[in-house]
Amino acid sequence: MIVLGIDPGYALMGWGVVEAEGSRMKLINYGCIETKAGVPMQNRLRTLQLGVRDLLNIYHPDDVAFEELFFARNVTTALMVGAARGAAIIAAAEYTQNLYEYTPMQIKQAITGYGKADKKQIQQMVKLLLKLDEIPKPDDAADAIACAITHCQAGVAKSQFLMK
Amino acid sequence: MIVLGIDPGYALMGWGVVEAEGSRMKLINYGCIETKAGVPMQNRLRTLQLGVRDLLNIYHPDDVAFEELFFARNVTTALMVGAARGAAIIAAAEYTQNLYEYTPMQIKQAITGYGKADKKQIQQMVKLLLKLDEIPKPDDAADAIACAITHCQAGVAKSQFLMK
Repeated sequence: MIVLGIDPGYALMGWGVVEAEGSRMKLINYGCIETKAGVPMQNRLRTLQLGVRDLLNIYHPDDVAFEELFFARNVTTALMVGAARGAAIIAAAEYTQNLYEYTPMQIKQAITGYGKADKKQIQQMVKLLLKLDEIPKPDDAADAIACAITHCQAGVAKSQFLMK
Repeated sequence: MIVLGIDPGYALMGWGVVEAEGSRMKLINYGCIETKAGVPMQNRLRTLQLGVRDLLNIYHPDDVAFEELFFARNVTTALMVGAARGAAIIAAAEYTQNLYEYTPMQIKQAITGYGKADKKQIQQMVKLLLKLDEIPKPDDAADAIACAITHCQAGVAKSQFLMK
């Protein structure tokens, strides 16, 4: 099974592709889709949409796992991040109905066994679980990889995309 | 000039098509794109995206004018409305670069000459300006029409889509 994990963001959208066979997991690739401040919003959203579409066409994931957002610094930020998330969801929904999302707490629990683990602990476990030489950078990509791993973990109840 | 006005929303996205020739304005059509609670989010966003795409293909607007959102009840709502807005912007950006947005205050000012006018005053002016027999319903559609009228008003500085 190939899983594309996505950490939705507006300036930086993290992504990670993980392949799982039974309990064995392998990191295929990871990175960030970047959009620049000062560029019109419609162009930034299109960049995110087309970026996610490219990832789907390149890696052919079976499932897509989003990190769920449920807080933001303020309402203005939430409107922007929400739009970025919308762009990614639309691109993914064109490709598959197998969309899932996990809260940060579910991800922490799945990866470290502790729902209040900090970022460093998560990143160390990502490195360990995927037998990497280094912690993937930037944080947004590491978060996306952690989300993909969560979806691959056998013990984790698959969290269907929320109906809201 | 044909203008599609959009009032972005998640459950109800209002739209209105206005044709302007000089100072004369005519309402071509209006309505709402609806999405139902309980349906997975990706399907609701796709409905909004494809709904806006249909409107563009049917009415061939020269410009698209969005009512700008800059508040929401809370961050969770803002994330959802932001995603809905993102879906509409993506559909519009596939079709044209002529995207504009106006704050509620700009719309009130353009339509009634008074930036703090209430909903009723706006709706009465929409009816008057477009020589309608009745106030368009629901409110979301009336708001979208008001946004399209704002863009058509000769005296209004065209408000390019914000760079954020």
